[in-house]
Amino acid sequence: MSGSVFGTIFKISTWGESHGQGIGVVVDGCPSGLRLDEEYIQTYLNRRKPGQTKYSTPRKEADKVSILSGVFEGKTTGTPISLIVYNENQRSGDYSKIASYYRPGHADYTFDQKYGFRDYRGGGRSSGRETIGRVAAGAIACAILKDLGIEVRAFTRSIGPISINEEQASIDQAYLSPLYMPDLKASKEAEDYLLEQMNQHNSVGGIIECIVTGMPAGIGEPVFDKLDASLSKAVMSIGAVKGVEIGDGFQCAMKLGSENNDSFLVLDDAKVSKASNHAGGILGGISDGSDIILRAAIKPTPSIFRTQNTINQNKENIEIQIQGRHDPVIVPRAVVVVEAMVAITLVDQLFMGMASRMDRIKEFYKK
Amino acid sequence: MSGSVFGTIFKISTWGESHGQGIGVVVDGCPSGLRLDEEYIQTYLNRRKPGQTKYSTPRKEADKVSILSGVFEGKTTGTPISLIVYNENQRSGDYSKIASYYRPGHADYTFDQKYGFRDYRGGGRSSGRETIGRVAAGAIACAILKDLGIEVRAFTRSIGPISINEEQASIDQAYLSPLYMPDLKASKEAEDYLLEQMNQHNSVGGIIECIVTGMPAGIGEPVFDKLDASLSKAVMSIGAVKGVEIGDGFQCAMKLGSENNDSFLVLDDAKVSKASNHAGGILGGISDGSDIILRAAIKPTPSIFRTQNTINQNKENIEIQIQGRHDPVIVPRAVVVVEAMVAITLVDQLFMGMASRMDRIKEFYKK
Amino acid sequence: MSGSVFGTIFKISTWGESHGQGIGVVVDGCPSGLRLDEEYIQTYLNRRKPGQTKYSTPRKEADKVSILSGVFEGKTTGTPISLIVYNENQRSGDYSKIASYYRPGHADYTFDQKYGFRDYRGGGRSSGRETIGRVAAGAIACAILKDLGIEVRAFTRSIGPISINEEQASIDQAYLSPLYMPDLKASKEAEDYLLEQMNQHNSVGGIIECIVTGMPAGIGEPVFDKLDASLSKAVMSIGAVKGVEIGDGFQCAMKLGSENNDSFLVLDDAKVSKASNHAGGILGGISDGSDIILRAAIKPTPSIFRTQNTINQNKENIEIQIQGRHDPVIVPRAVVVVEAMVAITLVDQLFMGMASRMDRIKEFYKK
Amino acid sequence: MSGSVFGTIFKISTWGESHGQGIGVVVDGCPSGLRLDEEYIQTYLNRRKPGQTKYSTPRKEADKVSILSGVFEGKTTGTPISLIVYNENQRSGDYSKIASYYRPGHADYTFDQKYGFRDYRGGGRSSGRETIGRVAAGAIACAILKDLGIEVRAFTRSIGPISINEEQASIDQAYLSPLYMPDLKASKEAEDYLLEQMNQHNSVGGIIECIVTGMPAGIGEPVFDKLDASLSKAVMSIGAVKGVEIGDGFQCAMKLGSENNDSFLVLDDAKVSKASNHAGGILGGISDGSDIILRAAIKPTPSIFRTQNTINQNKENIEIQIQGRHDPVIVPRAVVVVEAMVAITLVDQLFMGMASRMDRIKEFYKK
Repeated sequence: MSGSVFGTIFKISTWGESHGQGIGVVVDGCPSGLRLDEEYIQTYLNRRKPGQTKYSTPRKEADKVSILSGVFEGKTTGTPISLIVYNENQRSGDYSKIASYYRPGHADYTFDQKYGFRDYRGGGRSSGRETIGRVAAGAIACAILKDLGIEVRAFTRSIGPISINEEQASIDQAYLSPLYMPDLKASKEAEDYLLEQMNQHNSVGGIIECIVTGMPAGIGEPVFDKLDASLSKAVMSIGAVKGVEIGDGFQCAMKLGSENNDSFLVLDDAKVSKASNHAGGILGGISDGSDIILRAAIKPTPSIFRTQNTINQNKENIEIQIQGRHDPVIVPRAVVVVEAMVAITLVDQLFMGMASRMDRIKEFYKK
Repeated sequence: MSGSVFGTIFKISTWGESHGQGIGVVVDGCPSGLRLDEEYIQTYLNRRKPGQTKYSTPRKEADKVSILSGVFEGKTTGTPISLIVYNENQRSGDYSKIASYYRPGHADYTFDQKYGFRDYRGGGRSSGRETIGRVAAGAIACAILKDLGIEVRAFTRSIGPISINEEQASIDQAYLSPLYMPDLKASKEAEDYLLEQMNQHNSVGGIIECIVTGMPAGIGEPVFDKLDASLSKAVMSIGAVKGVEIGDGFQCAMKLGSENNDSFLVLDDAKVSKASNHAGGILGGISDGSDIILRAAIKPTPSIFRTQNTINQNKENIEIQIQGRHDPVIVPRAVVVVEAMVAITLVDQLFMGMASRMDRIKEFYKK
Repeated sequence: MSGSVFGTIFKISTWGESHGQGIGVVVDGCPSGLRLDEEYIQTYLNRRKPGQTKYSTPRKEADKVSILSGVFEGKTTGTPISLIVYNENQRSGDYSKIASYYRPGHADYTFDQKYGFRDYRGGGRSSGRETIGRVAAGAIACAILKDLGIEVRAFTRSIGPISINEEQASIDQAYLSPLYMPDLKASKEAEDYLLEQMNQHNSVGGIIECIVTGMPAGIGEPVFDKLDASLSKAVMSIGAVKGVEIGDGFQCAMKLGSENNDSFLVLDDAKVSKASNHAGGILGGISDGSDIILRAAIKPTPSIFRTQNTINQNKENIEIQIQGRHDPVIVPRAVVVVEAMVAITLVDQLFMGMASRMDRIKEFYKK
Repeated sequence: MSGSVFGTIFKISTWGESHGQGIGVVVDGCPSGLRLDEEYIQTYLNRRKPGQTKYSTPRKEADKVSILSGVFEGKTTGTPISLIVYNENQRSGDYSKIASYYRPGHADYTFDQKYGFRDYRGGGRSSGRETIGRVAAGAIACAILKDLGIEVRAFTRSIGPISINEEQASIDQAYLSPLYMPDLKASKEAEDYLLEQMNQHNSVGGIIECIVTGMPAGIGEPVFDKLDASLSKAVMSIGAVKGVEIGDGFQCAMKLGSENNDSFLVLDDAKVSKASNHAGGILGGISDGSDIILRAAIKPTPSIFRTQNTINQNKENIEIQIQGRHDPVIVPRAVVVVEAMVAITLVDQLFMGMASRMDRIKEFYKK
């Protein structure tokens, strides 16, 4: 059944396989009057492009986006925006071997179980290239958010066991790190660790953190479409994510109420604030006006260049040796994907939240 | 906007406030021919009822469920099943004070920001009593799953810093623990810890783990309605949950690919299995036939009997002292809520998954 | 699968069988701050109640509504509103015979084909009593619309071959007619016609017209959730409706472009108007600011007190004679049901339409 | 908000403007294993192509479709199928004049009201070219239905006042008529009528009828997603449709119960049938196994080559004379669009209907 459409009134529909004609997304529900061009969207896609550092696959792909509809004279028209990236660098030969067996940690086996067969070239639909559609749509969502004074920024919090030191980290420096870590000292350590594992033909995971600033209070739809619940789904739907937490997340489970509660306080300028933000900006599934903080756990890339045990389609136990060009760590390239999914979710929730109060609806429709 | 409806083709719509007339749920999309009665649903509701141990609020509530529709001669008819639990024990007096201020860690402030005012009695819609509708619907989902050979079982993995020892744990023993911990030694320690914190007028969090057995491979809808993504939303939508992880979850972020990959293997009986289950039974968002493993981080109850700083509706900094009867830990009562949300999600995904393959659809509709 | 939930962000979930415990609806997505009480909703339910004229079934049912949630101190809170009407007058004995056979024109056969069996008492879920939930929810929708200056009014346009004369009709008089016809002369003729057919143990159909005034221009979501498309689904989902048309509807098919086009014109007060309204207030699926005009064709009640040929569950050809108390015409009681479904659809579309333009969204979220 | 996505578990997302880069659709939820190629889809698109008879616009457009994803080695993979038709013949010059005023009967005014401005070239998103996406997706739906033994066929029932004589009509002959009328004598008369109106610079409407054969009983989801309700929305969402009816439709309103009821009967081969089919194959919103019959009223093309009164964006009353190439009647080209929307709806309902009965679900998931 349909699973590639996301959102309720701001809705994206992604399509495309790793080695098909291309990858794309239709963004439906983008309001009219938003300035939009291909150059802007490209800046987001460039952040997830492979081949930019030695820590990502050496595949070179331009990943050049075209806007096919929904934009007229530089502005969105309110109609669906179709975005496409044609696939270029398809060395299908690399992948032909994997047609017959199931790589550990990949979706080969489950796709075959679900659909009876699969497009095995480069992972087909389960390839990381699928996220191109997410990022392109996320760029549009971020443009909408920016117009509302909201900013979504993610970064690499940890690579394997190497974590940033918050006191030395500055999110503005993340782009200086090839691993997108905002603590350059930790980044250097992480690079060393990563190179060591690459030499061992191994791969590494990590944690991505996302911070949303400028979010108004009152956004989120209890009880099932809570802001944190919707964000969790959005982020967990990214290929390699195995865990999501809001605010202090799993740390909360070990804390006492007296440690975890955030006191509200009124500042001198009469603004409402909180003495701490263990909650990560969401209470009862609704934004409280502080920063939203979310973390995603990324598993190590399953493609490792070691002999592995697995089975083939004939249900025989075999040994395999994966070939090809693969990322030793996916975390840095996934940062912008997390931003994209968070932004898309926020836009949908902000739009839905407009219909929460009768007084505001009357004001809106008053001539 | 609407946020109290969950699911795509197996859909639940919950309603009710802590101190209103009652709490209920409409389950729409339950297939016909399922045996169902109130006694069975009651067994699930009894597991979340307060007042059963000294570690939960001493409020006594019968939480007796009635089936109002959708069942005829002991079987579901395929039409909506309306379930209701009337509220009985409403000591509204306890709550009148909280109308004017915002309790830390509660949804008082965010509800006011969103809706302009709130039903402040007992937390209104943000009360834990809201989960009654989830559990009642979850009982129906579990009955459907049972007919398909699938079992969903959750338990308390940790209370504060006290975690079960997996080697000493047996899920069948969980019901013997007042904290629903399957390791009775750890349970005893956790009770001691909890009593100590209760004496300090404090509250405690913990982790719930849920294991699904008997799940067929091939369930889940990439790329957005992946099984893990859908489960995350379902579980994160439960009031006190701050994090969700699948399989090894956040541990994956620190592991190497060689440690995290699960090798497929064919057993002597020709069944496909895996040498390990770090993935928690889901690959590429689709079930792989092994046990599904999910964990949820539960924050400590925000209602603590200590003086706390906060603000009131006039935007003044004040000190408050919460009164009333509150759970010092919500984890044990939330176990069945996690089971419910997992079961509801699985049913929806199993039903949607029937339309995945043309050959099976043709077989289904063949006369 | 779920089919009893309607709407996207203003969502209703109806439940209940003719002879079950009751009938109800959960309205999710109603904004906070709307004044609402049971007396008001009751006025809508009273309009569909049976037994009020000699042209409807003599069954007496109080159909008294209770609000179970979502309203606090006289105003909606933004949380789900659960409404219930308990069934009282259940003469199940009348219906026991029909368990074994399939009444022509009823849903007995199709429910059995779909679900394998059915709650045969009084039609179960396919009974006209199902519309109680719609009307109760519709009352809420009408209250929202009224606050926005929008009024939805339906009336009986024709009964069998007797149609109103528009020049003699005044919608304000409809309530003076037992058939809810706004032309009292036509109403008298229709009564005579109806009595004649009742004496012949026959039943009669008719046409309901609905006019919406005060609708702002710009509402409707091309290309699939167009205003007319959404209204069509809403109205066609009412039990006995077999056709829906907007504006001149089927008459358009026989007209020329020069006859059917409505010229826009600017009035002296600078307001935009049209020289005619063949389009029924909708162009390209979006409201144009003129009155919305919709008509629904209602089939004659299938329950007639004549010998009819049909089959039984053993697949034998038989003759039957329907017993019980049935409406000889359903049109007058269905008028308020049409109003309800139109109103519910308009509210949903108005709420979704708030997110159409970036400039308005920015204005909305500007502090 | 999003309005260009249609369907629940078989979901299509269309995009594209008349004079943009192209028109397309993403079909999400197509099961795996369906044979599919571009040639087959092209046969459907060719039926709606302009310029094939003197009764349609002389614009020549190849409307050549490409499959961009979701098909591997000639079969669908279960992942989204992206289809694209590039726009070629864009004489934008023809349309520049219309930027400043609002054509009667068109969506110019309402789009401006909704979105603040519009892509005025050739009607932009409200152009008939938008239906290319529907037809391409409809071709896939028809292929699925064919595999299930279901056939959807539509034809022109009437052009202006000229209607087919059912006794002389044979649906197999429709393709011999330039107007797609299955009664060639009526077709000739209609051609004469049409030419006469074309000479008068006028346009003409008509009625399309659609018949579905081979539909199993039991499909449709009461009470809101009834089969007839869902079909109504699907068909009413097509640009020029102003009315939809099922079976005898509006005729029912004038009939007696004794005339309108269809008696069930068991045939000699033990099959269940009906003595008549006034209901059009749907009872209580569920298919009864007989042919589904639906009719759509199509308005005359609003673009006529006569002087018309209207207003411009400055709110001045003006006279206009539309230029360009327009269809004098849209009915024949819309026939395949009706088929497409009916087929898409049926597939969605058939897929959802698989989860109706517990016994069949158990059978499906039994190993």
